[in-house]
Amino acid sequence: MIVTFLGTGTSTGVPVVGCRCGVCTSDDPRNSRLRQSVKIEANGKFFLIDTTPDLMGLDDIRPFNFRQRESIHAFANAPTAKAIRRAFSYIWNDTQIGGGKPQLELHEVDGTFRHHDIDVVPLPVIHGDWTILGYRIGPFAYITDTNGIPDSTAELLRGVDTLALDGLRPSPPHPTHFTIGEAVEAAQRIGARMTYLIHLTHEIDHVACESTLPENVRLAYDGLRLEF
Amino acid sequence: MIVTFLGTGTSTGVPVVGCRCGVCTSDDPRNSRLRQSVKIEANGKFFLIDTTPDLMGLDDIRPFNFRQRESIHAFANAPTAKAIRRAFSYIWNDTQIGGGKPQLELHEVDGTFRHHDIDVVPLPVIHGDWTILGYRIGPFAYITDTNGIPDSTAELLRGVDTLALDGLRPSPPHPTHFTIGEAVEAAQRIGARMTYLIHLTHEIDHVACESTLPENVRLAYDGLRLEF
Repeated sequence: MIVTFLGTGTSTGVPVVGCRCGVCTSDDPRNSRLRQSVKIEANGKFFLIDTTPDLMGLDDIRPFNFRQRESIHAFANAPTAKAIRRAFSYIWNDTQIGGGKPQLELHEVDGTFRHHDIDVVPLPVIHGDWTILGYRIGPFAYITDTNGIPDSTAELLRGVDTLALDGLRPSPPHPTHFTIGEAVEAAQRIGARMTYLIHLTHEIDHVACESTLPENVRLAYDGLRLEF
Repeated sequence: MIVTFLGTGTSTGVPVVGCRCGVCTSDDPRNSRLRQSVKIEANGKFFLIDTTPDLMGLDDIRPFNFRQRESIHAFANAPTAKAIRRAFSYIWNDTQIGGGKPQLELHEVDGTFRHHDIDVVPLPVIHGDWTILGYRIGPFAYITDTNGIPDSTAELLRGVDTLALDGLRPSPPHPTHFTIGEAVEAAQRIGARMTYLIHLTHEIDHVACESTLPENVRLAYDGLRLEF
């Protein structure tokens, strides 16, 4: 299994449009962060774990549909599936086809599911007022957008080798995301061999911030590739 | 007034993901086309004329809101405004703020309107089953996404100096867009001094296609800048 971090930034991306801060103008490529998403290759198949705003590019699955000549399967909890159906209603509504519509088979998940012989474990986590999903595939778990991990989800993470975990910024506390300090605390509680912090703002300089972290917590960066 | 073409491609962009055709692998930068949009600078203010799928990046106005400390004004006809309110319902709904919401002041237009002392003339055109809007600002008019221009709209275009007009591909005819030939015919009917074709697919090689066009019809390309 190969995990590639396609983006490790918060929803604005880094550099932030128009910003001249030290991180946004940095020469260190690890300070350039596309919006958070990850690609997982397993059994010769690809999973993309992706959230808004990147999901707003859903129209872009069309070239893949054209080439594969089949639908793409998508998995989401019920509220997320509902939001996708609302925002991309033209996929399901009987409107003119125009340049083609994304061919999407949308599955609502409420527990472990199997796709292409791969078991995927949804991980309910707190994101402000909402409960949203991270995902675990075997040794790897991915939780972006969280400021709280319930005990029942910590249980689902037992024995995980590598965890990717939301660590928005050093401070102040945020109503929907972990700070770096809160993420480190959660990482030690979960106890993965290695935790990579993700969903990072321009308030994080890669080298300076990583030097403050314990050895089993690192910062992810765009293009980071992990093999299992 | 300065008009800059930010993108001149159809909704997939060019190159198309995964495509190895001659245009998608061309070295000619005019064969690289972001999705169709145009920036107009007038009286020191900027207008962006933009459609889905690019509008799906509406979340990205947040950094502009942060810097300007004010809302961005958006103008659309009633069905488009409704679609924006549906797809981006979180802007108007009382949900958690999280990383911030786009600050947008959405105006429904049904005729000429004035913004920052600039008169903007909506141009109703046919786009398959729908009537959508192009826009004219003084000497420049912009019509993407069309396969028919009603006489009443041709009237609104009287005396226009430069027209940007949908010219999807050479053939076959498309249910919602002009082919190159149809666009040339419409251009001659409108009679602008110069017409630039836009919303181009990877079936158009810039040099080869432009050599077939009459002198008063050219292909637009990303970065093309016109001054009035």
